Amino acid sequence: MHIELKRGSSTKLYIQIALTLADRIRSGLIEPGTRLPSVRKMTADLGVSLVTVSKAYAELEAIQLITCSQGKGCYVRGAQEIEQTEGMDKNQQAERNHDNTPWNWQMALVDYLPRAQLWRHFDASPQVQYELHMSAIQPELLPTTEIINSAYRLSSDHPERMAAYGSFQGDRELRQTFAGHFAERGLQVAPERMLITSGTQQGIDLVARTFVGPGDVVYMEAPTYTGAIDVFTSRGAKIITVPMDGEGMRIDLLTRLCDTYPPKLIYTIPTYHNPTGVTMSARRRAQLLNLAQSYHCLILEDDPFADLYFRDSPPASIKSMDTTGHVVYIKSFSKVLSPGCRVACAIAEGSVLTRLVAAKSTADLGSPLLTQKALQSFIQHQYSSYIVRLRKELYARLQAASDVLEEYRVPGMYWVLPEGGLNLWLQLPDGLDMRELHRQSLAAGVSFLPGSACYVGETDTASLRICFTVTNVKGLCEGLRVLCGVIQRVMPKQGGTAADRLPLI
Amino acid sequence: MHIELKRGSSTKLYIQIALTLADRIRSGLIEPGTRLPSVRKMTADLGVSLVTVSKAYAELEAIQLITCSQGKGCYVRGAQEIEQTEGMDKNQQAERNHDNTPWNWQMALVDYLPRAQLWRHFDASPQVQYELHMSAIQPELLPTTEIINSAYRLSSDHPERMAAYGSFQGDRELRQTFAGHFAERGLQVAPERMLITSGTQQGIDLVARTFVGPGDVVYMEAPTYTGAIDVFTSRGAKIITVPMDGEGMRIDLLTRLCDTYPPKLIYTIPTYHNPTGVTMSARRRAQLLNLAQSYHCLILEDDPFADLYFRDSPPASIKSMDTTGHVVYIKSFSKVLSPGCRVACAIAEGSVLTRLVAAKSTADLGSPLLTQKALQSFIQHQYSSYIVRLRKELYARLQAASDVLEEYRVPGMYWVLPEGGLNLWLQLPDGLDMRELHRQSLAAGVSFLPGSACYVGETDTASLRICFTVTNVKGLCEGLRVLCGVIQRVMPKQGGTAADRLPLI
Repeated sequence: MHIELKRGSSTKLYIQIALTLADRIRSGLIEPGTRLPSVRKMTADLGVSLVTVSKAYAELEAIQLITCSQGKGCYVRGAQEIEQTEGMDKNQQAERNHDNTPWNWQMALVDYLPRAQLWRHFDASPQVQYELHMSAIQPELLPTTEIINSAYRLSSDHPERMAAYGSFQGDRELRQTFAGHFAERGLQVAPERMLITSGTQQGIDLVARTFVGPGDVVYMEAPTYTGAIDVFTSRGAKIITVPMDGEGMRIDLLTRLCDTYPPKLIYTIPTYHNPTGVTMSARRRAQLLNLAQSYHCLILEDDPFADLYFRDSPPASIKSMDTTGHVVYIKSFSKVLSPGCRVACAIAEGSVLTRLVAAKSTADLGSPLLTQKALQSFIQHQYSSYIVRLRKELYARLQAASDVLEEYRVPGMYWVLPEGGLNLWLQLPDGLDMRELHRQSLAAGVSFLPGSACYVGETDTASLRICFTVTNVKGLCEGLRVLCGVIQRVMPKQGGTAADRLPLI
Repeated sequence: MHIELKRGSSTKLYIQIALTLADRIRSGLIEPGTRLPSVRKMTADLGVSLVTVSKAYAELEAIQLITCSQGKGCYVRGAQEIEQTEGMDKNQQAERNHDNTPWNWQMALVDYLPRAQLWRHFDASPQVQYELHMSAIQPELLPTTEIINSAYRLSSDHPERMAAYGSFQGDRELRQTFAGHFAERGLQVAPERMLITSGTQQGIDLVARTFVGPGDVVYMEAPTYTGAIDVFTSRGAKIITVPMDGEGMRIDLLTRLCDTYPPKLIYTIPTYHNPTGVTMSARRRAQLLNLAQSYHCLILEDDPFADLYFRDSPPASIKSMDTTGHVVYIKSFSKVLSPGCRVACAIAEGSVLTRLVAAKSTADLGSPLLTQKALQSFIQHQYSSYIVRLRKELYARLQAASDVLEEYRVPGMYWVLPEGGLNLWLQLPDGLDMRELHRQSLAAGVSFLPGSACYVGETDTASLRICFTVTNVKGLCEGLRVLCGVIQRVMPKQGGTAADRLPLI
């Protein structure tokens, strides 16, 4: 088994080992029932002492993630098994529960995936009546038919154009359309400066694989987007998180931290931040850009929601102020138009762009032409009127959610209504047993994203994210009522057992 | 600037530095006109001595990749500039030629992209009359209209299905269809064992990012697929290449090498190998699987062409003999059906599969549903009859190519006709100036893939790959005639200058 150890670090080696294993066990990468490598094997693999591995295993046993017995070795506990295998294929479950498959040898196969919260929370999540965990727009509100029709027209007229590989950088026509789209939003950018990616997830991943390596310092807001944490962790980055207030990331704190740990990259979602909904002020945006310029580092500006404002449009993007190529701007069209197309756009300059295009070629040779063509005509002709209607629909949902929450408010629970976007961040009373809440809520038919998934290292946090746009108003209100009921029920049990609250981190 | 140095290696540090920089310069990642970091800066970045960096730069100067002058520093030479910027956007060219853009600071930004041959050879390649460099099927032969029609029917009936995120693992219906498809080819595999990827390029990349890290030993055929070399190089793998003969990879040599360097992964294209067209014998396939089992390593079996045989079907896939989960099998449907959809399928078992799905979630949240749905119905109902027709068409092209080559054969040039696939590998007389040939051939309107792009470290090799299926018969024949004429013309110049033949490697 491979674990990235930082030998000069102030964190002791056995703690580093225990933390990494805990992360992998919790995210399901090391499955319940798995036998961990023997202390002797692990000692050899990692080049550390027997005592170090023994202490790491003892830590994991203390927090009840593994059970060890003499002669038999250490096994990942099955307690989480029920939680983690819900919603999985029957075959996969069978596979997990059998320690004697012919591919048992695979557990000794080293991998480089330290964390996979995204996968755990979104792919294996059970089918429930009220799915509020996924940040998305209710399918009925999306212009799917229009997009399919325009793709059909385009491709029946020129089938041979669909039969070719696109350019690695993305379809030129689509990039031209995007240029017009961005210009209307104060961002003057030529098609040559764009790279089409398969969703912003890939945009984040391409930036990370190109510019972030082991030990490089990456700053992120705390909390932040789960998928971005997964990516930077997988690159072995030193992730430092920066608290937020009502104006977004605390640039004063960031500045002080940068003195000690110069940044390689700063990842931010400045507008209708995921998961908190907070918008970074114009002043802080300018400060952040200044900081990046003085440290010669990159800003990765993730901007999926800028068009989804409810009253006033948000402050100008950081990218629109960038004259020196410090900002890589990534814009998703998945959420707003078509999750089934997975089209996003990255904007960058100079050799940063060149290097991203090269990385894209290595990753997948370029995004599919079909999905790019499908969106192009719609964005050019119909997007502007569509987005006005969509904003109204989404705002109505936020108001409905707000009404239900006010009515069923549990003492100690609070939230701030976002001015745009899809997400609502709920703070719950401190000490509430979040695992129990999640379990009971799923059992009652409501899914949410536990706040812990949005923190590096999964700190225990009494918070959760719901998406208020993923279902119709009726479903949203019913789901929230059920959720508030469950919160109420779980309240007395606050505290839970020590093991449930991940004391390690 | 970041360079991965292996301090215990038998290759001297200055050679490692020179090799890496040469690779980046040749693939265009470090652009002509770029000023390299000063010796002092590089010394500090890499933690090596001033002498080491000076010697590395001297090597690069000796092979004329850079020019150094006192006081001014070292610059990447402009000689390759013309070759590399052909076919690029005007804006990009302008950017390259100006050393004074506002994003000059970016050159100091460390990246982790050691090689990008794929990008260099396929994206920036000039528009020519006869494009024989790209391994693809002539668009008119592909069932694009049928695919688009079936996508349209499916998605007009159920637009809301297109409006959702797909599962990370891929659309279940498509995986079910694939199960039937593979069963007809002797590969019994449940949909639960599959992962849909965006082309095989992504499949290779996912396997590499999950299981290959710095120093891990990866075996490949020599020559092999350019895009796979890029991927494994980018992971910092120790790549060892194994020569081939008429039965494919030399397993006897591989076995001996494995004694000294135990494998983490063996990448192979056993059927109608890219670029050579050779097919691995059934006996060697079984030997290879045995070897993987005894070394507890993975085989990555890349199989884009198995359906494209001209007379007899090829030996059974290695995967079909695999009962212990050692083989990750990746099957492209891009080339055969629709490059515009970029759909491929990976098959794996146990935790290897689980980990690949987790990696896919981090990479892009799953492939677009639209392209998956587009292919599903066609593969289910029309693929079988389509592929029979396609084989005949492709075989006719091979015969036409063979006739022209026989007629215009240049002394010292030879080839073996492949029994399937899309590629023809030409060996040219030793000592022929390949750079000059490439330049003149492009000028005459014919593109090809220089053999050097298919080798790790880009050895100088008098060979090239053409694709005989990418154009119609007439274009193919004309292009080959022009190419043979250019080869004839370049012949007397054999030898070239020492600098042109990359003596460093």
